[in-house]
Amino acid sequence: MEKKTIAQESLELHQQWRGKVEVTPKMDILTRHDLACAYTPGVAEPCKVIADNPAAAYDYTVKANTVAVVTDGSAVLGLGNIGPEAALPVMEGKAALFKAFGGVDAFPICLATQDTEEIIQAVAAIAPTFGGINLEDISAPRCFEIEARLNDLLDIPVFHDDQHGTAIVVLSGIINALRLVGKSKEDVRVVVNGAGSAGIAIAKLLLSYGFANVTMVDKFGILSSSCPNMNEAQKAMLEVTNLSDMSGTLADALVGADIVIGVSAPGVISQEMVASMADDAIVFAMANPTPEIFPDEAKAAGARVVGTGRSDFPNQVNNVIAFPGIFKGALAARAERITEPMKLAAAEALAALVSDEELNEDFIMPDPFDPRVADAVAEAVSARA
Amino acid sequence: MEKKTIAQESLELHQQWRGKVEVTPKMDILTRHDLACAYTPGVAEPCKVIADNPAAAYDYTVKANTVAVVTDGSAVLGLGNIGPEAALPVMEGKAALFKAFGGVDAFPICLATQDTEEIIQAVAAIAPTFGGINLEDISAPRCFEIEARLNDLLDIPVFHDDQHGTAIVVLSGIINALRLVGKSKEDVRVVVNGAGSAGIAIAKLLLSYGFANVTMVDKFGILSSSCPNMNEAQKAMLEVTNLSDMSGTLADALVGADIVIGVSAPGVISQEMVASMADDAIVFAMANPTPEIFPDEAKAAGARVVGTGRSDFPNQVNNVIAFPGIFKGALAARAERITEPMKLAAAEALAALVSDEELNEDFIMPDPFDPRVADAVAEAVSARA
Repeated sequence: MEKKTIAQESLELHQQWRGKVEVTPKMDILTRHDLACAYTPGVAEPCKVIADNPAAAYDYTVKANTVAVVTDGSAVLGLGNIGPEAALPVMEGKAALFKAFGGVDAFPICLATQDTEEIIQAVAAIAPTFGGINLEDISAPRCFEIEARLNDLLDIPVFHDDQHGTAIVVLSGIINALRLVGKSKEDVRVVVNGAGSAGIAIAKLLLSYGFANVTMVDKFGILSSSCPNMNEAQKAMLEVTNLSDMSGTLADALVGADIVIGVSAPGVISQEMVASMADDAIVFAMANPTPEIFPDEAKAAGARVVGTGRSDFPNQVNNVIAFPGIFKGALAARAERITEPMKLAAAEALAALVSDEELNEDFIMPDPFDPRVADAVAEAVSARA
Repeated sequence: MEKKTIAQESLELHQQWRGKVEVTPKMDILTRHDLACAYTPGVAEPCKVIADNPAAAYDYTVKANTVAVVTDGSAVLGLGNIGPEAALPVMEGKAALFKAFGGVDAFPICLATQDTEEIIQAVAAIAPTFGGINLEDISAPRCFEIEARLNDLLDIPVFHDDQHGTAIVVLSGIINALRLVGKSKEDVRVVVNGAGSAGIAIAKLLLSYGFANVTMVDKFGILSSSCPNMNEAQKAMLEVTNLSDMSGTLADALVGADIVIGVSAPGVISQEMVASMADDAIVFAMANPTPEIFPDEAKAAGARVVGTGRSDFPNQVNNVIAFPGIFKGALAARAERITEPMKLAAAEALAALVSDEELNEDFIMPDPFDPRVADAVAEAVSARA
């Protein structure tokens, strides 16, 4: 028999599952007494308590531990704008991971609109059930405004995982890569290739953490004052990146750089570019499924540490080590936002899970199945909330 | 030790539960292979299939078996307009019952708006995840327009349970009460006291089933052409009820009536009124927690069959025998609406679960814990879809 591909196997499993999550009661309802406690008439009592004090919803309802995983289906995986129904398998999968890895209840919400105002209205309307909102696979630049406006409107945290989850995991990996090569964040020169939502979030978090020298590059070259056609988010990044205002190509940017972080396109980093970087170069090539440069090529060209988005190479940059713990911690603290210090604390907690003995070129980030991960992140996030 | 009241016990349990439902994965996620099948990269495959054919969401996602339990918190139990957070324990309870009694996954959605247009927009926006929408505890007359417009907008069924679930269970009880007293639907005179959303839905369903003589009464008296201040929904009922256009009070309406169905207020039916009804009178007194008339008083005044909304008297009119099976059947048939014939089929299926041997004055409706109930309703609904 021919071996099934993951794609075939996954499709068959999805048809068997018909939904990857289910909604199950936490109690037996086997008797009239059970019914009277879980439903009428007993249920009127917590209703009255919450009517007097809406914050009591955290004590008596699912709001305590439940996150909405919200998308408009506009930027799903590498598939692009496939719409809300087609995005549902991804959002269900994410909901399953929230529970499996963090014990957080999460429910997929796929919106039948891609209009910024309508998305904001819909999410604000459904917010009372939830203790947090995980935005997912919403295309830039709409994702920036949607997240910012919802965080202003709502008293629960709204977190676009494609931006901040990715940034947290990248930062944790970079922290450990620097531990390994013995360089410091103040001294290294970092290039982020890809100035979309993930790239901008990564650059911002690196700067928050204290990296002093970050340059961004997009398809049109280095983001500088001489670039035409930058969007508002990219223009804003000019204030804090590329302080020498250099211009040129990715190849120009990489000469002498210590770290390159690619969230861009397959094959765009050449061996020559890596060879032009500083000694002990760190290369994160996260384009999926084909990275900006393959690990063996990068290593041959002189890179010391290489990460990718793939599970079949070492050092996978995988958001699953971050988002379950981040929301678990935010919910525990009843945080109204997930702030920059909370994100930095999460990244440091992840980095700290790799001991000095374990740390090596092929192991800079904890394993997703390491049972300590979610609690370590949650405790760090909750303590900083 | 003093015995706890149900209210005290329920409050304590709600605090322990902190949410009555949880969202759980249907599969183990213990290995990288599990992760690759349930999430990336495997999940891209069902996404692509659904992108090509959105209806395939029923084959590969939670849409197959998931209902939103939606409220705006405007008319919760007998508590009134307590808002979305305070309504959450009721919606969670309903979600728990959907699963416990019907195997249907249901998720509570409490909306932070009571504006008709905003409710319609929010529900339409979140519809892609769901195979059906159960509206709950939304006050009249907004509930009529919200349900009708959503049913027109969406290709999944939208069902206001306070109206139609109640009507279905009442009809099933009336069918069996008539079996018992040997009267026929064409001959009896029915009075519905309370011309709100439940009363109007009950009257409509009785008429659909073939009851010929239905009169409605509200606080201001019998609904007739001489009544001022009726709302649009009440005016519309005049076309099909009270065909002799009688006017007067509830007492006037009940003289010689065979059946009275109260969805109104505590104590408004007197023993004198019941005594004035026809022989073998049927009294459904469903005000909660204090009925329009207590069963022992109604019996003493000559009623033969009495139903209430309470579990501590015989013949409880309890929606839990209807809604899990109704949605189970509608989902199985991928019905776009829950039509009048589907509702009638559900009522008949419920009535038929009580055998001739079992049928008596104190047992006209199946027990909520009878394991046949949901499937009997689901099969009837699905067959008629």
